[in-house]
Amino acid sequence: MRSINIGILGLGTVGCGTAELLQRNAELISRRVGADIRIAAVVDRDLERPRPVSFPPESMTTDARRVIADPDIDIIVEVIGGVHPAREFIIEALQQGKNVVTANKELIAKHGSEILDVAGRYGRDFLFEASVGGGIPIIGPLKSSLIANRIEKILGIVNGTTNYILTSMSSVGKDFADVLREAQAMGYAEADPTSDVDGYDSAYKLAILSAIAFNTRIRIEDIYCEGIRGISSKDIAYAAELGYVIKLLAVARPFDGQVEARVHPAMLPVDHPLASVNDVFNAVWLRGDGVGDLMFYGRGAGSLPTGSAIIGDVVESARNIINGASGRISCTCFDKLNIRPISDISLKYYLRLQVADKPGVLASLAGVLGDHTVSISSVVQKSGGDMAELVIITHEVEEKNVQAAIGVLREMNYVSEVSSLIRLEEE
Amino acid sequence: MRSINIGILGLGTVGCGTAELLQRNAELISRRVGADIRIAAVVDRDLERPRPVSFPPESMTTDARRVIADPDIDIIVEVIGGVHPAREFIIEALQQGKNVVTANKELIAKHGSEILDVAGRYGRDFLFEASVGGGIPIIGPLKSSLIANRIEKILGIVNGTTNYILTSMSSVGKDFADVLREAQAMGYAEADPTSDVDGYDSAYKLAILSAIAFNTRIRIEDIYCEGIRGISSKDIAYAAELGYVIKLLAVARPFDGQVEARVHPAMLPVDHPLASVNDVFNAVWLRGDGVGDLMFYGRGAGSLPTGSAIIGDVVESARNIINGASGRISCTCFDKLNIRPISDISLKYYLRLQVADKPGVLASLAGVLGDHTVSISSVVQKSGGDMAELVIITHEVEEKNVQAAIGVLREMNYVSEVSSLIRLEEE
Repeated sequence: MRSINIGILGLGTVGCGTAELLQRNAELISRRVGADIRIAAVVDRDLERPRPVSFPPESMTTDARRVIADPDIDIIVEVIGGVHPAREFIIEALQQGKNVVTANKELIAKHGSEILDVAGRYGRDFLFEASVGGGIPIIGPLKSSLIANRIEKILGIVNGTTNYILTSMSSVGKDFADVLREAQAMGYAEADPTSDVDGYDSAYKLAILSAIAFNTRIRIEDIYCEGIRGISSKDIAYAAELGYVIKLLAVARPFDGQVEARVHPAMLPVDHPLASVNDVFNAVWLRGDGVGDLMFYGRGAGSLPTGSAIIGDVVESARNIINGASGRISCTCFDKLNIRPISDISLKYYLRLQVADKPGVLASLAGVLGDHTVSISSVVQKSGGDMAELVIITHEVEEKNVQAAIGVLREMNYVSEVSSLIRLEEE
Repeated sequence: MRSINIGILGLGTVGCGTAELLQRNAELISRRVGADIRIAAVVDRDLERPRPVSFPPESMTTDARRVIADPDIDIIVEVIGGVHPAREFIIEALQQGKNVVTANKELIAKHGSEILDVAGRYGRDFLFEASVGGGIPIIGPLKSSLIANRIEKILGIVNGTTNYILTSMSSVGKDFADVLREAQAMGYAEADPTSDVDGYDSAYKLAILSAIAFNTRIRIEDIYCEGIRGISSKDIAYAAELGYVIKLLAVARPFDGQVEARVHPAMLPVDHPLASVNDVFNAVWLRGDGVGDLMFYGRGAGSLPTGSAIIGDVVESARNIINGASGRISCTCFDKLNIRPISDISLKYYLRLQVADKPGVLASLAGVLGDHTVSISSVVQKSGGDMAELVIITHEVEEKNVQAAIGVLREMNYVSEVSSLIRLEEE
């Protein structure tokens, strides 16, 4: 039986998960593929650290470049993470005629085009299913099964940490800071949670999905990105009263020759398929003009789920090597669509304010909103002492008008605080 | 740009949907693929019937064999349906060196092995993503992205007609016969609904999924198959009270060297991801030892969703042709696992009975169940006149014991009817 030799760069969580699953199901995988997938080399800076999997000592090295240059290695699996030296290693591997598989979302979001150009020039595979949604197959389906579709919209819950935090806040009514601390204690959130809770991780994944779905290069800096630090348990409770749940969504859709691409907390109707995606689970919902509404749901992180996606790509690549068909699916980012500024996007909004509980206040507020073409769909007022809390849902309106109205409201005497502004996402 | 010529056999709903989507997005598809996918020939017995798409007259013919033999045709799309002559046409096409794409679940469930053998012998592609779950990518992911996984369980809602009927019964409290009539009037159920409501359509799809997931040939006759005619609105209401919904499930899992493969109505906890799959939507939930829990959700039927999956396969096949890699993924049914008889399977059960409302009846019933090792987890009794309705949930027990106990209960004086027996599916 033909052997395909892989070299794994990086023996962290994902590298070890990949190796563990590959070793555990080696026989099954080789029967399914008709070839042995052999871990011929593993690279890490620290070979002594205890790990959940073991490797023959002669396959272990600290020298990535030796593995990249090894003519016996067919496929390089890059699971170091970060931009450098991952980018350089991958480019060298492609230039050496190797196919490359990675889970590195930051690298692809920032340098995907460049790397895909190199892969194309050398006729090699550069595959990255594991970079979005962990074990959930989404990039493969977009590039194959769904290829006939004009994608009309993507909504993703693509960060497990924030989804876990929001789910916990919903079920126990605790506030963000408390739940974050618990999530850190349980290993669901990192010591520095910035990349997750401020939405950057979701933005990387959205950049990758949008590039494939809309066939365009996406500059990560152009994606509007707002995290969940501002969400309070009060907002979650009001949302529930109104028939919504709050999720950190990655949203993209083509619009008028541009692409909307934004990450922010959003209120989603409770009967939307994404509304019941809870805890650390991820899901990508999309609408295609042929296929209609689709959703992919599963574990968006973890060593074995991510390893599952990586091995899937390794096998795709192995099949290409066996059939002399490497580079079989090339980059499809042939357009250069601009990303629509958030200020131009029209949505419905949820607004929560603290105001003086006096006659005429609501009329005056409504007047300010009306002056900015913001029309009100519903209002809930809850009084307490001489203050009242107002929750307003608007009709659809451009973001810049809402922001301008809020600017005016903040200056008004009887408005003590504009507590929250949350976008609604209704389909 | 390279052209790939396809011939479509059958211009019914799916054939026309495929052509419509291919024509509508022709330019987008050809840019994504790097090749033109041309409909070079279409075949139907009746060329005069009005259709939603039009074709150049010279491409239309009633002669399938001429198209199959045409050396300019690269890929045959078989969407005639049924076993004959679809089987013969497909085998001839493969023998003529053509790749074949089909949506024909009955044919694959009954003759998939034979056809895949021919495809393997001639080094051709035989692809059938559209045969399960309409537009939902599931076969592709099982054969590629998820290949590293030992699949531990599959639960599918793979028939839109029955899911629509059960959803309507739940929401309006109507009985099966009324809702079926409405579904027929709306075009969601066929005049002869047997294949859908008696579960055969789901069984075909389960046979296909199980064969791929468990790498075994499956004889369709061995799949236990029970439809939804026996489900009453009363059962649905009790299920809701107990925290369950009733769905027609296709269930498969490996067990003790055998495979469980069964289609029947089942009570599913309301918080299971499949529980909120409503109306005509389909979904396949599965658990893999690496990836964990996954779910694929979308439209399981309809001309454009099915067309979307067919074109996805056509493109896969076109890429193989362009790269000289046809037959790139071969049949993986290398095992011959037996299907476990339903009588040997252990589950929890929901039992509804009409009994005399007299002292000692429940004790006597419980005694009969106990004699057959059926132990009771919960009982609800509702009295009305001199009769009572009993709803019993059992602990896990082998099906043959439950059936034997029911046989005895039916003979007892104070049991006037065993109204329902519904299996529970708890994960």
